[in-house]
Amino acid sequence: MARIVMKFGGTSVADLDRIRHVAGLVEAEAAAGNEVAVVVSAMSGETNRLVGLVDALDADSCQGAAIEDEYDSIVASGEQVTSGLLAIALRRRGLKARSWLGWQIPLRTDMAHSKARIAEIESSAIGPSLKTGNVAVVAGFQGISDDGRISTLGRGGSDTSAVALAVALKADRCDIYTDVDGIYTTDPRICHDARRLNRIAFEEMLELASLGAKVLQTRSVELAMNNNLPIRVLTSMADVGDHNPGTLVCHEDETMEERVVSGVAYSRDEAQITLLSLEDKPGMVAQVCRAMSEANVSVDMIVQGISRTDNAANLTFTVSQRDLDKALEALDAAKNIIGFEGVRFDKDVTKVSVVGIGMRSHTGVAQTMFEALAERGINVEVIATSEIKISVLIDSEYTELAVRAIHNAFQLDATTAPKVSAP
Amino acid sequence: MARIVMKFGGTSVADLDRIRHVAGLVEAEAAAGNEVAVVVSAMSGETNRLVGLVDALDADSCQGAAIEDEYDSIVASGEQVTSGLLAIALRRRGLKARSWLGWQIPLRTDMAHSKARIAEIESSAIGPSLKTGNVAVVAGFQGISDDGRISTLGRGGSDTSAVALAVALKADRCDIYTDVDGIYTTDPRICHDARRLNRIAFEEMLELASLGAKVLQTRSVELAMNNNLPIRVLTSMADVGDHNPGTLVCHEDETMEERVVSGVAYSRDEAQITLLSLEDKPGMVAQVCRAMSEANVSVDMIVQGISRTDNAANLTFTVSQRDLDKALEALDAAKNIIGFEGVRFDKDVTKVSVVGIGMRSHTGVAQTMFEALAERGINVEVIATSEIKISVLIDSEYTELAVRAIHNAFQLDATTAPKVSAP
Repeated sequence: MARIVMKFGGTSVADLDRIRHVAGLVEAEAAAGNEVAVVVSAMSGETNRLVGLVDALDADSCQGAAIEDEYDSIVASGEQVTSGLLAIALRRRGLKARSWLGWQIPLRTDMAHSKARIAEIESSAIGPSLKTGNVAVVAGFQGISDDGRISTLGRGGSDTSAVALAVALKADRCDIYTDVDGIYTTDPRICHDARRLNRIAFEEMLELASLGAKVLQTRSVELAMNNNLPIRVLTSMADVGDHNPGTLVCHEDETMEERVVSGVAYSRDEAQITLLSLEDKPGMVAQVCRAMSEANVSVDMIVQGISRTDNAANLTFTVSQRDLDKALEALDAAKNIIGFEGVRFDKDVTKVSVVGIGMRSHTGVAQTMFEALAERGINVEVIATSEIKISVLIDSEYTELAVRAIHNAFQLDATTAPKVSAP
Repeated sequence: MARIVMKFGGTSVADLDRIRHVAGLVEAEAAAGNEVAVVVSAMSGETNRLVGLVDALDADSCQGAAIEDEYDSIVASGEQVTSGLLAIALRRRGLKARSWLGWQIPLRTDMAHSKARIAEIESSAIGPSLKTGNVAVVAGFQGISDDGRISTLGRGGSDTSAVALAVALKADRCDIYTDVDGIYTTDPRICHDARRLNRIAFEEMLELASLGAKVLQTRSVELAMNNNLPIRVLTSMADVGDHNPGTLVCHEDETMEERVVSGVAYSRDEAQITLLSLEDKPGMVAQVCRAMSEANVSVDMIVQGISRTDNAANLTFTVSQRDLDKALEALDAAKNIIGFEGVRFDKDVTKVSVVGIGMRSHTGVAQTMFEALAERGINVEVIATSEIKISVLIDSEYTELAVRAIHNAFQLDATTAPKVSAP
C-alpha cells in the first residue's frame, strides 16, 4: 500500500466525460489499496474565461488599488468547481471522497497575490481523512494568504500544489497526468523516432523544463528534487488497465539507464543582440548586465569576441523574444555609459541544447554535437554550457535538421544510448 | 450618515456592463456619506450552468453518499466570481472595496447543505472594515457550516443573506435591487392601472410573497419583520440620480397610507381535488391531511360540503400543480383508510387573493370582493381567509377578468384607497 498524489491538468478534466474518466483512473489506484489524494486544475478554457472577465474590468481605468487579491478569488473558483465535480463522480462510483479548497486544508502562502509562494501545508486534517479511506480531491493552484484571503500560485501552479501536497503528506509518489504519455528524448513532432524515457533525473528535467519542454513546471521539479519526491509523468487519456508507465522523474541514483545524454531540447523564443565596437574597459559586461537587469530582462547566453576587421571587442548575448524591445530601449538609454558604437539584433535564431547528467563523468559530448552540426553545414553562433547541458544558438531555418542530427548522433532512438569516450 | 446593505440579483449583475452600472449605484450611496455593504448573486445563468454540471454527474448512478456538500461548493463559486468582479469595478472608480466570501465573514449556517439556515453572522471583521470607508462586497447565498465546508441557503437565498447581514451589521435599511421598480397593487402585465406602492407592511408582503408575488423571498421578509429592519425594493436598471423610490417594506405603523386592501395577487399553480361521498366519521379530514403530509404535499385551501344529490359529504382542497400526481397516488393508497368513493381533480383553477392589514379593523372586504366577481358572472369554488387576506379559487379562464374587477372594486389605481364600511 502506498500513498499517492495524482494531479490532473485542464485538458484532463475538460468536460464531464473527461472527469468521469479521471474518476475511473482514481478508482483503480484506490482499488489497488492505495491512499489517494487528487489535485485538479480548472476545466480547460475556464481560467481563460475568468481572467478575461477580470482583464475587461481592469482595463476600465488605472484608478484605484491593485486588484490581485480579487483576481485570485475569482480565478480560484475554476478549480473549486472541478474539485466538487470530481468528488461527486467518485461518490457515484461508490468511493468515499470529498473536495478540499486551499483555505480548507489549509495550504498557506505568502501575500504575493496572483503569484504566491507556498509557506506551509497543514496535513492534520487531510492526512487522517486519507487514512479512513477517503479520497481527497484538492483544488490546485490556490491557497490562503496571511490576511485570510484566497491566493493563487500563478499559471501552472497546480503542478506545484500537487508536489507540495505530496511532500506534506509524505506521499510515496506524485503522478502528474497530462496529455502526453511521458518525457521524450526530444520533440516527437519534429523527430519521429523520439523515444519516451522510462526515467529521468531531477536535474535533467529541470534543464529540459527551463529549455522549453513544457510538460512540468520548473518550480514543481525543484520542489520534488529538494524533497527527493519521485514524480511520474503519464497520460490521462489511457484507459484503466492500459500499459501507461509514463516517465519517472527521480534522483539520479535511481535512473539506472547508463546514458550520457538524455534529451535534446530547443527553444525558438530567442533573440540575439550584438553590441559592436565596445570600448575595452573593465566591468563593461557587468554594465550591460546591469542595464538589462534594471529593465527586468533576463540575459541567457553571452559571449565576447574580437572583430577580425577592426580588432574591436564585440559582445553577443541572447534574451527572450518578448523582451527584445525592452532590451533595445534599455541599451539605447545606456549607450554612453556602456560605450559602444552600434547594435545588431536577430530574431531568427533558435537555441538547441543537449542535456544529460552523464556529461559530468563523460567527455566528448561537445565534439559529437559539433561534428553532427558541421556535417550538415549548420553554423553555430553562440555556445553556452553548464555541468549537464550544452546549448548552441543557430539560424532558425536549421532547427528541425539540427535537432534530428543531434538526436541521431547520440543514438537517442536506441533503447540504450552509447557511451561517448574521450577523443 | 446611514449604514445600508444593497442587494443585487442575477439580472442586475448579468454581464460586465451591468456590473459597471451597479458599481455606479454603489458609488452614489457611498458618496452620500453612507457605510455600504453590497450583497451579490451569481451572474444570471451561471447558477443554472453549475447546477446543470452537478445534475449530469449526479444522474450517473444512485450509488454512493449524498452530494449536497459538493453541490454547495460548486454552486457557491458563482457568487464568488461576481463579488470579486464588483470589488474590482468599485476600485476602478477609486473606491476602497473588497469581496467577502461566506467563510471569510464568517456567515455560519447549520449543516443542511443546499438549503442551510443561517445560525450566526459575525460582524467583528466586516463591521470595522465598513467604518474605515471600505465597501464590503459580499457573496450572497453562501455560508460556512460547522464542518468547515461551504453551505448554501437554497434558491433565492441571496435576499436572505442580505437581510441577515443587515440585521447583523445593525444597518438602517436593506435595499433589494431587482428588475422591477417596486411592489405593485397587482401584476401590471394583466392590470395596466396597477400602481406601485410607496410602502407596504411586512405582514402584507409576506402574504403577497407566499401568494406568488416573486419579488422577495418569504424567508427574507420574515427575518426583516422579526428584526424590524426596513427593506426597500427598487430597480437596478435606473441611472444614478433618477427618481427611484421603490417600495419600502416596513412595520405597519410606518406604512401611513390608510388603505384597507394593499394588493391583489393570483397564482395559477393550483390544483383542486375533491373526494366524493366520504364516510361521515370523526377525524376524516385529519386522515386526508396525514396522507398528504406523509407524501410531502402541502394542502392549501380546504372546504367540506354536503352533496345536494345524495346528502353525502364531499371534501375539496387544493395543492400545487407540481404536487398533484403525488397527491393522487397517496389518496389512492389511502382510499380504504380514509373511506371515500371517488376522486375528481381540476388543474384549470386559479387562486385570487386580496391582502391588506386594514382588514383587521374593517369589515365589508369580502362583500366588495364577491360582488365584484358576481357582477362578472365568476363562480367561486373555494374560499379561504386569514386575518389580512381573502383567497378565492376560480376557473382559470377568468383570471385576468377577476384580478381587474377586484383591483377596480377596491380602487387600487387611486392614490388613496377608499375605506370600506360595514354593510
